[in-house]
Amino acid sequence: MLNLNRELVQCIKDNHLENDLLKGKFGIEKENIRINNNGELVKTPHSKHFGDKLLNPYITTDFSESQVEMITPVCNSIDEAYNYLETIQNVVSVTIDNEFLWPESVPPILPNENEIPLARYNTNEKLVKNNANMYRKYLADKYGRKKQLISGIHLNFSLDDDFINKLYNSSLSQLSYREYKDEMYMKIMRNITRLSWFIIKMFGSSPVIHETYYDSCNLENLKIDKFKNTISIRNGRCGYKNINNFYVPLNSLENYITSIREMIDSGKLIGSKEYYSVIRPKSNKGNLSAIEKHGIDYLELRLLDINPLFKLGVNISDLYLIHLLIILALILEDSEMNESLFYESINNNQVVAEKGRMDNLKINWKGKRVDVKSMSLHIMDTIEEVVNIIDPPIETYKNIIATYRDMVIDNKNLYSSIIYEQIKQKGFIEFHIKKAIDYAKDSLSKRFNFIGYEDMELSTQILILDAIKRGVKVEILDRNDNFIMLSAKDKVEYVKQATKTSKDNYSTVLIMENKLVTKKILESSGLKAPLGEEFTKIDLAQKEYYRYNNKNIVIKPNSTNFGIGITIFKESFTEDEYKTALDLAFQQDDTILIEEFIEGKEYRVLVIDNKVAGVLLRVPANVKGDGTSSIKQLVMEKNKNILRGQNYRKPLEKIKLGIPEKMFLTQQKLDFDSVIEKNRIVYLRENSNISTGGDSIDYTDVISDSLKEIAVKASKAVGASIVGVDLMTKDITGEATDNYSIIELNFNPAIHIHCYPYKGKNRKIGEKILDLLNL
Amino acid sequence: MLNLNRELVQCIKDNHLENDLLKGKFGIEKENIRINNNGELVKTPHSKHFGDKLLNPYITTDFSESQVEMITPVCNSIDEAYNYLETIQNVVSVTIDNEFLWPESVPPILPNENEIPLARYNTNEKLVKNNANMYRKYLADKYGRKKQLISGIHLNFSLDDDFINKLYNSSLSQLSYREYKDEMYMKIMRNITRLSWFIIKMFGSSPVIHETYYDSCNLENLKIDKFKNTISIRNGRCGYKNINNFYVPLNSLENYITSIREMIDSGKLIGSKEYYSVIRPKSNKGNLSAIEKHGIDYLELRLLDINPLFKLGVNISDLYLIHLLIILALILEDSEMNESLFYESINNNQVVAEKGRMDNLKINWKGKRVDVKSMSLHIMDTIEEVVNIIDPPIETYKNIIATYRDMVIDNKNLYSSIIYEQIKQKGFIEFHIKKAIDYAKDSLSKRFNFIGYEDMELSTQILILDAIKRGVKVEILDRNDNFIMLSAKDKVEYVKQATKTSKDNYSTVLIMENKLVTKKILESSGLKAPLGEEFTKIDLAQKEYYRYNNKNIVIKPNSTNFGIGITIFKESFTEDEYKTALDLAFQQDDTILIEEFIEGKEYRVLVIDNKVAGVLLRVPANVKGDGTSSIKQLVMEKNKNILRGQNYRKPLEKIKLGIPEKMFLTQQKLDFDSVIEKNRIVYLRENSNISTGGDSIDYTDVISDSLKEIAVKASKAVGASIVGVDLMTKDITGEATDNYSIIELNFNPAIHIHCYPYKGKNRKIGEKILDLLNL
Repeated sequence: MLNLNRELVQCIKDNHLENDLLKGKFGIEKENIRINNNGELVKTPHSKHFGDKLLNPYITTDFSESQVEMITPVCNSIDEAYNYLETIQNVVSVTIDNEFLWPESVPPILPNENEIPLARYNTNEKLVKNNANMYRKYLADKYGRKKQLISGIHLNFSLDDDFINKLYNSSLSQLSYREYKDEMYMKIMRNITRLSWFIIKMFGSSPVIHETYYDSCNLENLKIDKFKNTISIRNGRCGYKNINNFYVPLNSLENYITSIREMIDSGKLIGSKEYYSVIRPKSNKGNLSAIEKHGIDYLELRLLDINPLFKLGVNISDLYLIHLLIILALILEDSEMNESLFYESINNNQVVAEKGRMDNLKINWKGKRVDVKSMSLHIMDTIEEVVNIIDPPIETYKNIIATYRDMVIDNKNLYSSIIYEQIKQKGFIEFHIKKAIDYAKDSLSKRFNFIGYEDMELSTQILILDAIKRGVKVEILDRNDNFIMLSAKDKVEYVKQATKTSKDNYSTVLIMENKLVTKKILESSGLKAPLGEEFTKIDLAQKEYYRYNNKNIVIKPNSTNFGIGITIFKESFTEDEYKTALDLAFQQDDTILIEEFIEGKEYRVLVIDNKVAGVLLRVPANVKGDGTSSIKQLVMEKNKNILRGQNYRKPLEKIKLGIPEKMFLTQQKLDFDSVIEKNRIVYLRENSNISTGGDSIDYTDVISDSLKEIAVKASKAVGASIVGVDLMTKDITGEATDNYSIIELNFNPAIHIHCYPYKGKNRKIGEKILDLLNL
Repeated sequence: MLNLNRELVQCIKDNHLENDLLKGKFGIEKENIRINNNGELVKTPHSKHFGDKLLNPYITTDFSESQVEMITPVCNSIDEAYNYLETIQNVVSVTIDNEFLWPESVPPILPNENEIPLARYNTNEKLVKNNANMYRKYLADKYGRKKQLISGIHLNFSLDDDFINKLYNSSLSQLSYREYKDEMYMKIMRNITRLSWFIIKMFGSSPVIHETYYDSCNLENLKIDKFKNTISIRNGRCGYKNINNFYVPLNSLENYITSIREMIDSGKLIGSKEYYSVIRPKSNKGNLSAIEKHGIDYLELRLLDINPLFKLGVNISDLYLIHLLIILALILEDSEMNESLFYESINNNQVVAEKGRMDNLKINWKGKRVDVKSMSLHIMDTIEEVVNIIDPPIETYKNIIATYRDMVIDNKNLYSSIIYEQIKQKGFIEFHIKKAIDYAKDSLSKRFNFIGYEDMELSTQILILDAIKRGVKVEILDRNDNFIMLSAKDKVEYVKQATKTSKDNYSTVLIMENKLVTKKILESSGLKAPLGEEFTKIDLAQKEYYRYNNKNIVIKPNSTNFGIGITIFKESFTEDEYKTALDLAFQQDDTILIEEFIEGKEYRVLVIDNKVAGVLLRVPANVKGDGTSSIKQLVMEKNKNILRGQNYRKPLEKIKLGIPEKMFLTQQKLDFDSVIEKNRIVYLRENSNISTGGDSIDYTDVISDSLKEIAVKASKAVGASIVGVDLMTKDITGEATDNYSIIELNFNPAIHIHCYPYKGKNRKIGEKILDLLNL
C-alpha cells in the first residue's frame, strides 16, 4: 500500500545522493514541569541564573512559569541535537536545585486551576512583555491552565540544501527552485500526517493521568485498568488540542497559508502558532508571512510525548526511526490529501492514542479498514527498504529496525505498555518521582560535561555550560583546539581553552610564556621570583660555585623521578659538596637546574580581572588509613567519588595502582596490601599533579589578604586579565613579607580545578570569565 | 717604578675574584662634526628623524648644531658598548644622507667663527631650553666656537658591585662601604691621571690641524713638517682645555668636591662640567651634589681622540688596553698625589701630546727625568703582569700585549705617525674625506643590523634601529626569543619578533594561528578564502569526488617538491581522473590537500592599524640573461648586491648553485653553464621563498584601492593591529570582485622584506610599528 517513487529513487542513485538523504539540520525543543520531591508542581520563579527568558536561546519558559522549555540550537545531526538537549537538561537540572523535572507529558500533582502560575515577563521592552503576557492569558482562558501544562517534544528538521539543489537540477521540473523545495516539504507534511498514527503508536508514552487533572477532562474517578489500552493521553481527546478540528489543506503551501489566514481572520485562532497540527512548516525569518515570502526552511514535528523511560524524554533510536520516516515520507509515491483523508488521519491518531494497545485494532486507510498491526509491519518493511537504498554509513540506522519490529509484533513491547505496567505496580506519582530523581542524579554526575564533546578540555566544557545557562550563544569553531565563539546580542567573543581571550593582549601572554622575561618583570615590580639557571655543561656549572655558596639552593636534573638526583643546600656548603651534587644531577639528565631553594607549598592563585577568583593547593595522590583497610581498598573506595574519572574527562583522576605508585610505596616500606593505621595519610605519588590522582584543595577563603595582594600585583605587573599565579609559601594565611616566591605565571590556567575541587567550594570560574567578557 | 699592591692581589686571589676584576659596566660617548663631501662643516639642522635632542638618549648634539653626539647605553662589556656605538653611528650615518661624519677630533674646513651654528633647542620646557642655550652661548664667548668644535671620545666605566662588595667584606678596612668604594675610584683617578701621558702617546691621533683652525690657536701658516712629532693637537695647548690649569686634589673625594665648589663659587667655572680633567667621577643620580650625597657610581675617561684610522674613531683593542690600565690603576701601590705631582702629570701630557714622537723624549716621574720609551715599556710589562694575574677567559686581552709593545718600541707604529704620514701623502682634507666616505659606505651596508646582535631576526633588528633613531630606549629581554622592551618617557611596551605587540589581543592572534577558524571568520565577513581539506586516508578522499567535481581544484601532497604529485583540475573532470590525481599525491606524502584552485600570484599585504603599510610580491630565485654570461656568472653577479647574504643575516639571500637549483634547471633543459639570451628570465627555484634566493618586489604603490580595502577588511574581521594578509590575485591593479582569495593571515609578518626589497622603496615599517605603539 506504501510504494516508493521509483523515478525519484533512481534519480537519487544516479546523482550519488544516497548519503545526502541522511544529511540535514536538526533541533529539539522540550518542555518539563518543575516539581518538588513530592511530585507537586512548584510555583517558584524561573531561576535567575537563566537570565532573561526572552533572550536565552536555550532555556526559557513555556505557558507556565513552572514549565521550563529547553531548546537546542540547529545541529548537523540527530546525535548532536540529542547531546545538546542532554547538556541543556543537565544545566537546568543542576541549577534548579531541590526541584526536579517532571519526566512526563501529562502533568504531576496540580494545584487548583487558578493557582497555576503563568510565565512572568520582566523585559524592558514593554510591547514584547505585554504580548507575551496577553498571549498566555488568552490561552489560559480558552483552554484552561491545566491543559496548557501538557508538555511535549518537538523535532525540527530540514533537508540538506545541497541535496535539494542537486535533485532540482537533475529533475525536469517546471517549478522554480523555491516552489520545488516548498513542494518537497509539503509532500513530507502530507505523508507524515498520513503516518502520524504510527508515530503515536510507537512513541506515545502518556498512558495514565493523575487525578488532579481529571476535572480538565470531565473525567470521574477511574481505576488504573481504564487506561489499559491507552497509548498517549496527550494525543487523545484529553490532550492539548484545538477546540475544533480544522481542515487545513496540505496540497499546496499557498492553500495551506490561505486556510490558516482565514481562521485567524475569522477569530478562530489568535495566530498561526495556535494551530496545533502534527507537523508545521517553518521559516527561519519569522511567521506565516515569512513562509509566504521566503518559503519553507524546515518542518516541526510536534507529536512526540515525553517518555519517562528516558532521561531526555525520548530515546535516540526513536529519533533515528522518525528520521527514516521523514525520508520515507519524501520518497514515497505522493497521493492527494483531500478533506476526508485529512480527517481520516486525525481520527486514526485519536483511535491509536486512546485505544492503541487493543489487539486487532483497526483504522481507516484511504477509506478502507486496515489492521493496525499489519499496517505497522508494512511500514517497517518499507522503512527497511529505504535503509537498504541509503546504505547508511551510520550503523545505528540499520540496527534499530529489528527492535522496532518487535514493538510492532507485540503491543507489550510498546513504551506505553511498559510505562502502564510500572505505574500499575508503583503508582503514578511514585513511578515518575523515582525517574525524576534518578535523572537529576545522572545530570549531577555529568554537570561538568558538554555532552558529546567530552574530548574537549574540561575548562572549556565548563565555560560552555555556564554560557548556555545564562543564554550566551556558543559556537564551536575548532573542537580539537577548544576554540569557541560566544555571542550575546551584538557582542562576539572568541575564546580558546577557556582562558585565552581578547581581554589579554598578546605581549602580556608572551611575557608569561617566557620564564626569563617574566622573572625580570616581576623583579622590577618588587616581587620575589626565585633565581634560577639552567646548565647543559658541568664545567660551566662548576665555575659558578662562588655565585651560589652563600645561598639556599636546590640542584636538580631538568626532569625528575622520585627525587633522584636532587640536592638541597640550606646552609653554606663546600665546593666539593657542590660538585658532587652537580655530578648526581647530571647522571639523571643532560640538563640540570640550579635554583634558589624556597621552602613551602605551591598554591595556584587564579586572578581574574585583578581579583583573586580561586586559590588551590594540589596534594599528591594519597589515602587516609582507617586501621582495617589495605591501601588498595582505600584507593578503590576513594576512586568511587563521581569527580574522579580517567583521561581528564572528570575534574579529578582516579588514583592508579601502577608501577610508579608501587615504587613510591616501596620507598616507604609499604605495598598495596599494607593496612594503614587510622588517620595516617599515605602518599602514592611524589608529584602533586591532578593528572596522577592528586587532590585539589580549595584555599580561597583561607589565604591572607596580603598574599592575595601579591598575586594581584603579579597580575598587574604583566598586565594580565586572567592568570594563574603559582605562589610558593610556607604560610598561606600569613602576612606576605619575604616568605613567598612566585614560581610561574600561567596564561592558560585550568578552571575546572577551582570549580570542582576535591575539598572546597565551586568558585564558578566560568561565570567570572563570562562576566569579564561582558557576556 | 710601578709596583702592584701585593696584599690586594693576594686578597683577590683568595676570594677567587680574578675574573670579577674584568667585570663592570661600560659606556661610550663620541662627538662627530657633520661635513659635506668637500670636507666643510655643514650648517644644516640636526635631523628631525632623531626626535627631540633633549630626550633621545642615543643621539643628540653637543656644543654645535653641526656636532652629533652619540651615546651608548650602559653595557656589560666593552664589546657590547663598542657594537652599540657602531649601531648608533650606522643609524646616524644613514640618516644624515648626503652628509658625512668627520672622522677626526680636530675640525674640518670651518667657516668664520660667528657662522658656526650653536646647538638649537626647541623643547617645550622653557627653563631647560634656556639653560641649554645659555650654556652654549657662555662657552662660545669664553673659549671660541672653533675650539668648542674639537671632538673626542669619552669612556665611562664602573667596577662590578659584587666585586667591590666581596673585596670590602674581606678587607680589614675601617671605612664604611661607601667610603671604601669612593676611595677605590679615587685611587683609580689618581693613577690614571699619573699615567694619562701614556694613553695620549698610545692613542693620540690628531697630529695635524686644518688652516681654518689656525686663528683660534694664534698660529701662522705652517708646513706639514711642523707637526712631525705631534701626537694629539686636542690634548696639547691648541686643544680644548680650561683657560687656566686648576689644581684639584685627588687625595679624597671630599677635597675634590670642595675644590671644584670653590672654583665655581669664585666664578672660574660655571659648573663642575666645565672642569676638563682627564678623568671625572660621576653619579647616576646627577651632578656634584649627587656624588657628594650618594658617592661615585662610575668614572669618565675623557682623553681619547677620534682616530680616523677606525670607523668608530677607536679600535676595540685600544679599549681593552685602557680597561687593563684601569685595572692596573686599581691594583697598583697607591702613592700620594700632591699639587706638584698633579702639575707634573699635566705637563707630561702636554709634552707627549705636542712632541710625543720625538726620539729620546723625556718626561718627569715623581720629580725625576725618565725616558718615555723605557717608561712605556715598563708600563706594558706591568700590564702583562696584570693579565697574568687575571688569566682572562677572553683571549683578546692576552693577545693585544704584543701589538702595543710594538707601538712602544718604534714611534713609527704609533697611530699618530701613521695618520701623519697619510696626511702628508694625500692632504689633510682628502685623507679624512676618503675615510669619512668609506665609513659611510660601510654603515650603509650594515643599515639593517643591530651590531653584535646579528643572530636576532632582521625584523627585530630593524625595529631596534628605528627605536634608537628616534630615541626610544631599547632593552633586550631575551635575545633568543627576539623579545625586547621599548620605553619612552613613562611608556613601556614589550615586543616580540617585531610584530607581536600589546596592540593585538590574544584571541585575534589565536584566530590567525588557526587556519580553519580564520576561514570561518573571513567568510562570515563576506571575504573570499579558498575551500580546502586535508586527507590522510585515500578512501575518504575518493568518496568526496561528487563534492569537488564541478569546482576548480588542486590536489597536492602536503609537502611539495618540484611540483611532483600536484594535479590541477580547471574544468570538470572524471572520477577516474580524480582518483589518479589522489594516487599521485599520496605517493609523495601521507597527507594530501584538496584545495580550491585560485589562479594568480600571491602578494603579501602588510596591514598596520587598518592601513596598508606595504605590498610585496615574492618571485622565485632567478637571473636575467645578457646573451653572453652563463647562469653561474649571472648568479654570481646578482649575489654581489649588498642586500644579499647568508643565513638570514641580510634582507635577501644569495642564490645558491646547489642540487635543487641544478635539478630545476635540468627540468628546463638547462645547466649552470648555459648562456641565456638577452632579457630572458630563468628561474632557479620553483618556490618563491626569500630564503632560497627569491626576489622581493614592492607593489605598494601599484595595488588597487579595492584590493587594499579587501586586505583592511580582513584585518578588521579578526580585529588585528598588525597582520600580513596573503592575497592571491591575477590582477593586483584591478578592481576586487571575485578575482582574489585570502590564503592566510599572518600574525607575525616579517617587516624587513618591506624595508629592503629587491626592487622598490623602503616602507619604513619599523617606524610605523613605533607609531602604532605611540612611542
